[in-house]
Amino acid sequence: MTNTSIGIDIGGTKIYIAVLKDGDMIGDPFKFSTPDTKEELLNIVTGSIEKILAKYPEVKFVGIATAGAVNKEGDKIIGSTGNMPDGYNTIDFKEVLSSRFGLDVLIENDANAAAYAEYKIGAAKGQQNTITVTLGTGIGGGIIIDGHLLKGKTGVAAEVGHMQISENPKRKCTCGAYDCWEAYASGTGYAINAKEMTLEVPAKERGFLKDKNIDEITSFDIIEGKKQGDALCKQIHERWENLVLKGLIALGNIFDPESIVISGGMVDCIDLRKLEERLNKELAAASKVRLLRAQAGNYAGMLGAILLAEEKFGA
Amino acid sequence: MTNTSIGIDIGGTKIYIAVLKDGDMIGDPFKFSTPDTKEELLNIVTGSIEKILAKYPEVKFVGIATAGAVNKEGDKIIGSTGNMPDGYNTIDFKEVLSSRFGLDVLIENDANAAAYAEYKIGAAKGQQNTITVTLGTGIGGGIIIDGHLLKGKTGVAAEVGHMQISENPKRKCTCGAYDCWEAYASGTGYAINAKEMTLEVPAKERGFLKDKNIDEITSFDIIEGKKQGDALCKQIHERWENLVLKGLIALGNIFDPESIVISGGMVDCIDLRKLEERLNKELAAASKVRLLRAQAGNYAGMLGAILLAEEKFGA
Repeated sequence: MTNTSIGIDIGGTKIYIAVLKDGDMIGDPFKFSTPDTKEELLNIVTGSIEKILAKYPEVKFVGIATAGAVNKEGDKIIGSTGNMPDGYNTIDFKEVLSSRFGLDVLIENDANAAAYAEYKIGAAKGQQNTITVTLGTGIGGGIIIDGHLLKGKTGVAAEVGHMQISENPKRKCTCGAYDCWEAYASGTGYAINAKEMTLEVPAKERGFLKDKNIDEITSFDIIEGKKQGDALCKQIHERWENLVLKGLIALGNIFDPESIVISGGMVDCIDLRKLEERLNKELAAASKVRLLRAQAGNYAGMLGAILLAEEKFGA
Repeated sequence: MTNTSIGIDIGGTKIYIAVLKDGDMIGDPFKFSTPDTKEELLNIVTGSIEKILAKYPEVKFVGIATAGAVNKEGDKIIGSTGNMPDGYNTIDFKEVLSSRFGLDVLIENDANAAAYAEYKIGAAKGQQNTITVTLGTGIGGGIIIDGHLLKGKTGVAAEVGHMQISENPKRKCTCGAYDCWEAYASGTGYAINAKEMTLEVPAKERGFLKDKNIDEITSFDIIEGKKQGDALCKQIHERWENLVLKGLIALGNIFDPESIVISGGMVDCIDLRKLEERLNKELAAASKVRLLRAQAGNYAGMLGAILLAEEKFGA
């Protein structure tokens, strides 16, 4: 009952490739910057696998967590994202890795895979109904219902960042529509909120932000200013927490989950206990939702993909 | 393989009780106005069942669709609604009907049951991922994922009416929170929109609505005015369609369903083809969602409850 496997996480900036025994990484993963072309990317993957197989010939399957959309069957990338090499979605990892190395391949969207890791081994361990929301550059989501990933009809479900939170169009989202939750409550949204709100205040009344270049204000600046008691920074931050709350309320009401796990770069900016209390006051159906901090770590996506691959191919 | 069963639909204004053979109603159902007390309500149910059993002693199970929340196991009402008799949620139908008549009992929330009927025998027949949205006095929802009802951890999931669509609090919802989709896009929301927008226009410029009592303007008035080419009525109606669209976009992005079925009193006010086109333009993930008109009819809730009961208890 021992499964030795290869886990891969392919993101817009980094690629991780690791050997795992029954879901635990052996040593540190290989790390690469995401290259500019799909050919280089495929070379990185196949080259690393070759090296790993030389040392661990018993490996039978690979789990890949990837940016972009993956089909429902978990064997094909069906949609890329702006920060991936051109034509990335035409790479057929299953075909390449099975014909070349005889390996079984499971592919899953990174946000879905991370949510699966939180459910199996992380913050939501043992909770059959849980949602992981990643607050980073954008907003990603992975949704577990009765122990299964929500995939939708084609595999692209759980786009939780694209609920529109304003009646009249104000701010364009990267998806092309207006006023998506992501446009306001992601890290990127945070910075836009900060810029807008700072511009509304006369230059000399900007306190902590007085000498900052408005186009370069980051969440770190605001958090620092807030720590120092700056009123504007406090307002900007509170507005953002309110905006985060909007989406959590919708998800709580729609899914009645045991928990919502928050991951991503912005999680440290949130007072989870305070927000959990507010969330539960605003839910329409009186069923308490816990707000948890992600625990599966930086390799959550890869670990989730391996957990799914083990269930499909494992001994 | 013949199942004779009893189907019951208990709503805030009406109760329907019918005999069914393999899911088809035999004759017309008994119809009652919902009484003021839970004792009277229980008498109506048990009295009708007694009569039915005298004629159809072969009945073995009952399917009940009800207003309010039902537990995940489908055998207990766990939350009532404002328009039901006091203490309604304390009625233990399973206990009463099994001990008194030896019947098996399945209970399901009416919006969930209606969605199940649309999926099994209605507009979304054969579609494994579909959502039914009921636009009536409020907004109800039932969600089918890979052929199963989304129930959440306790049974109260699918509260799709309570996504908040405004950043700053404007309009209070019946749930206590502000700016829920339901507060704007339900029939009730429609009338509030109409009143607000009419008040913003000087009395003599109100065209078709000039002589109407503002507190009594209904969706019927607006639709009639729109038909007659009135500009204000057209604006009011278009605003409402935009508001309906907001929620549909969120559901499309979150669930990637094959279809969203619209039911309830307001469905006739929507140009479904036009709205479907707009919906699919605004979805973040490029996976077409069909917008369909409900087909399971007035007894959709009861039929859905019977379909669920047949799967659980049927021969």
